[in-house]
Amino acid sequence: MLHLQSESTQRWLQQVDENLPEILIDHAHCERKAASTAMNLMNSYTENRPLCVEMTRIIQEELEHYHMVMDVLDRRGITFKRLASGHYGRQLNALTREREPQRGVDRLLIASLIEARSCERFRLLADHVRPRDAELADFYAGLFESEARHHTTYVKLAELFAPRAEVHQRLDQLSLQETAIIAKGSPLPRMHS
Amino acid sequence: MLHLQSESTQRWLQQVDENLPEILIDHAHCERKAASTAMNLMNSYTENRPLCVEMTRIIQEELEHYHMVMDVLDRRGITFKRLASGHYGRQLNALTREREPQRGVDRLLIASLIEARSCERFRLLADHVRPRDAELADFYAGLFESEARHHTTYVKLAELFAPRAEVHQRLDQLSLQETAIIAKGSPLPRMHS
Ligand SMILES: [Fe+2]
Ligand SMILES: [Fe+2]
Ligand SMILES: [Fe+2]
Ligand SMILES: [Fe+2]
Repeated sequence: MLHLQSESTQRWLQQVDENLPEILIDHAHCERKAASTAMNLMNSYTENRPLCVEMTRIIQEELEHYHMVMDVLDRRGITFKRLASGHYGRQLNALTREREPQRGVDRLLIASLIEARSCERFRLLADHVRPRDAELADFYAGLFESEARHHTTYVKLAELFAPRAEVHQRLDQLSLQETAIIAKGSPLPRMHS
Repeated sequence: MLHLQSESTQRWLQQVDENLPEILIDHAHCERKAASTAMNLMNSYTENRPLCVEMTRIIQEELEHYHMVMDVLDRRGITFKRLASGHYGRQLNALTREREPQRGVDRLLIASLIEARSCERFRLLADHVRPRDAELADFYAGLFESEARHHTTYVKLAELFAPRAEVHQRLDQLSLQETAIIAKGSPLPRMHS
């Protein structure tokens, strides 16, 4: 369903165990960036009405998630701060083709893969911390569903830019590359490291 | 209250009378751009919590306004489309100083002036069209209040970046320049022409 070609390794869960506060801070940034990506897509494809309607919904949901994560940080006494980038998003965005409509397809599919990976990681995180941190486990289990929905929305919107078969072929390609980026990982503990 | 140093001239109302559909389309773009400006400020000043809270509210309200304008366009059978820029925003943004915290002050104050001018124009438009178009007059009268509130919010947030006296001195300067830009106008019929 999520079009991911790998599962996160034990390596990431070890980063989580050793750096939970930093992962949580990064998660707040991820939600803000997700809202920002949707806003950028709306700005770029302003004449695409279905896209603009869906982007509005996603912006609102991501901002709501952002504030939910900020509340989690507050309750845990974690100070929110700027973080150096883990480069996952940058590496993915670098795969965007230049010319329209391919550019639009790629921007939407890359957004869909980031949502998918978040989704996978939220579930993994929820299961991993449940034995010792039920509150956090419930929080991440609660976010799982909307990120899965965002993934699907982005893939469907890409089909407004190119034929369905072409979109899914490109999704397979990009997903392979996403898997390579995730496999390489990042020494910085991040939601997508 | 709005810190504006001029009132819109008869010239603009004549553009409204001759090009109402284009002005309405531009208004939808303005609401989207207002949401986008707030998103950009949130991205730039991500560690400023009160700013991020207010930007979230403004993004949500501007997107709501955007969809309200799109509904007005639909009901009137006006096709939404991309428009060439009237350069009001670009000319104002060019006044932004480079270095922080002045840059932050200017970005917030310029946003506050755009809100103020929208506010003034909404009221003017409402009064102007009321005799022959009560629906549109009510619509614009309804938007007036929230844009006035956005103006005030942006000015208050600027006071987090510099002392109050300095902020208001800079607001006076920028407002003078905004007045000059509005006085010059634009041949393209726009909400801020
Ligand atoms: Fe989210
Ligand atoms: Fe999402
Ligand atoms: Fe608005
Ligand atoms: Fe506004």
